[in-house]
Amino acid sequence: MKCEIVAVGTELLLGNIVNSNARFLSEKLAELGYDVYYHVTVGDNLTRLKTVIEQGLDRSDIIITTGGLGPTDDDLTKDGVAAALGLKLIPHKESLEKLENSFKLAGRHMPECNLKQGYIPEGSIVLENNNGTAPGILVEKNGKAVILLPGPPKEMMPMFDEKVYPYLKAKSEFIIKSKTLRIVGVGESKVQEMLQLIFDTQDNPTVAPYAKDGEVHLRITAKCKEDLEADELLKNMDKQIHDILGDNIYGYDDESLEYVVYKLLKEKHMTVAFAESCTGGMISGRMTNVSGVSAVFMDGIVTYSNEAKMKFLNVKEETLNKFGAVSSETAIEMATGIKRVSGTDVGVSVTGIAGPEGGSAEKPVGLFYIGIAVRDKVEAHRFLFPSSREKIRWNAATRALDLLRRELL
Amino acid sequence: MKCEIVAVGTELLLGNIVNSNARFLSEKLAELGYDVYYHVTVGDNLTRLKTVIEQGLDRSDIIITTGGLGPTDDDLTKDGVAAALGLKLIPHKESLEKLENSFKLAGRHMPECNLKQGYIPEGSIVLENNNGTAPGILVEKNGKAVILLPGPPKEMMPMFDEKVYPYLKAKSEFIIKSKTLRIVGVGESKVQEMLQLIFDTQDNPTVAPYAKDGEVHLRITAKCKEDLEADELLKNMDKQIHDILGDNIYGYDDESLEYVVYKLLKEKHMTVAFAESCTGGMISGRMTNVSGVSAVFMDGIVTYSNEAKMKFLNVKEETLNKFGAVSSETAIEMATGIKRVSGTDVGVSVTGIAGPEGGSAEKPVGLFYIGIAVRDKVEAHRFLFPSSREKIRWNAATRALDLLRRELL
Repeated sequence: MKCEIVAVGTELLLGNIVNSNARFLSEKLAELGYDVYYHVTVGDNLTRLKTVIEQGLDRSDIIITTGGLGPTDDDLTKDGVAAALGLKLIPHKESLEKLENSFKLAGRHMPECNLKQGYIPEGSIVLENNNGTAPGILVEKNGKAVILLPGPPKEMMPMFDEKVYPYLKAKSEFIIKSKTLRIVGVGESKVQEMLQLIFDTQDNPTVAPYAKDGEVHLRITAKCKEDLEADELLKNMDKQIHDILGDNIYGYDDESLEYVVYKLLKEKHMTVAFAESCTGGMISGRMTNVSGVSAVFMDGIVTYSNEAKMKFLNVKEETLNKFGAVSSETAIEMATGIKRVSGTDVGVSVTGIAGPEGGSAEKPVGLFYIGIAVRDKVEAHRFLFPSSREKIRWNAATRALDLLRRELL
Repeated sequence: MKCEIVAVGTELLLGNIVNSNARFLSEKLAELGYDVYYHVTVGDNLTRLKTVIEQGLDRSDIIITTGGLGPTDDDLTKDGVAAALGLKLIPHKESLEKLENSFKLAGRHMPECNLKQGYIPEGSIVLENNNGTAPGILVEKNGKAVILLPGPPKEMMPMFDEKVYPYLKAKSEFIIKSKTLRIVGVGESKVQEMLQLIFDTQDNPTVAPYAKDGEVHLRITAKCKEDLEADELLKNMDKQIHDILGDNIYGYDDESLEYVVYKLLKEKHMTVAFAESCTGGMISGRMTNVSGVSAVFMDGIVTYSNEAKMKFLNVKEETLNKFGAVSSETAIEMATGIKRVSGTDVGVSVTGIAGPEGGSAEKPVGLFYIGIAVRDKVEAHRFLFPSSREKIRWNAATRALDLLRRELL
């Protein structure tokens, strides 16, 4: 079945916001086995809006609109859809009562314009909005359906998941299931090369790579009539890819690298502390985004200056003078230093040149060293990743977490 | 003049990526005084693509397409546009030579399919691509223009700025100028309330508020025939808003809060160090994203555990037992502690409950204290901001940077 997504709002056409709703809805519709052939964005203009809906009814089976359901004069989606379908707008008792009550509860007088939020095209179904005042609407006519959702993603997404998803699922012939494999430590082109045979021969399931902030995500998608058949297809492809990429795959779906590191530390009853120079606290920051991390993460020190490296981590002045702050020797002393002062099982250090200033021929921008001290073993790894300051720092933090993960495996 | 943006690519219709190109182009076109009435996204299908372009030529003066210029069978934008305009695709000598050379330089044989990247609709102008292999194209016919840009934002954006912006600027009757005021420390609804009169009476320039990660940004936009007239309008509105919001405005346009803090510290020749608990390194991480920050930022310590607070910052065990880790007393000892051990002019501390676990009736999730020690003065501030773990942490970091900024003013 063909589906079309229509976003309504002049703010989108002015570039004030990005149409993230279309991405969200498209992903869900693909998952449900619907074909989406068009996205259209139109402004708060009744004539153009009506024409767009008429065109959508002509070429698609289902239209989902987002935006334009609010109380102001600019909110015209219901008017446009009703006009295109040749339906009248009529008052909806429950919605009107709910509106009046919400204003009464807030002790405020309801402005006249809010009344329009309680009007619906005749014969339509109201989708209650638990996260805002504008209800959604579902209207069917001549075998076509138009679904009107609010514009703010925080209202639209739960309304879609709770009210629209089940409706569309019941209508769909297929089920689509997907699984994301998260890869770190190898680049996108290397992944492409290693999996060339799979990419060349894929059909169902499909396999698609996405580069994401220093990682590569592979999405496997199966389209089947039966749930179990899809599960089987996903499982087999996952195994095939695992046989090739091995430990470069660190997790699935929404598991972050820091969460996987946390899980490994917890399983092994080990604790960690970080000494960061160029990453300036990003590694600690990322780790502490995991709830419950206090069981494994003790502390972190951001030693940006040489003085701080000596004072807090006991890096020797001689080492800094002889090899420089960005060297494997300093990385090693930082790692052993943080492990000792924190009393943890593992110490991880990062020192590097994030730029844009501070590089030299011998030590260019993008050079960094990562030190890992585990119990009585310590080693340093050298990386060169010339890029923007932000990317170098993020990549250095990712590499440090990945090295720690591989060490724990 | 009317402009339409057409994105080409099945990956957009599958929801794999968000159409950020449309936002970028819309913002630029608004700035240039063009009216954008439609965004359309269509897949890699020749028939549908041709129809979309034909419709665009019917209702708009200028069409800008993004995507579908690559070497594979899926890349059909040139074919679709040429068909809609009734033009043939012909070889373009320079582009073909450039392509062949780039493969020769890489020591690789050029696959046959790459040849199509060197073909253009007859009579069109080639826009060189300095960041990829697919050139852009500008073609005019019957007073209409179609501009074909590559899909990857890193190729599209510089090509637009360098080649298309000057072309459109020369064609436009208006100039649009805007300025963003960055506000921190007051919420969006408070800003709305304080500026109600301005919002109610705005016309030219317009004033629009946007909530952004714990901040509010106000965009003032003037549309004029003359540059100086626009500057004058922006300046006057800026002054009006400044008179109302005062120091809540911390910066303009792309200036980040951390950059403003860095500038203030540098002006005053002061240094800072951070002691972070629940923010886990985020403040240090944000500060060190500013290039050159080593002049003012010495170090930071992430004291997640009570032991770390005592060991590194000399927080008293008695304080932790009596008032708890999340208390103004602990925040004060952390701030004085980090200032002393780091030997800086200022010490800033954050301690709080980021959740989702660990809250109580007395100390709920979202409670945090910020301590600021400057020379011989020290004070703690209490905040309660119930939200998701990520937002609480981000907001706590923002508040800490803002308090430091206000202290320095």
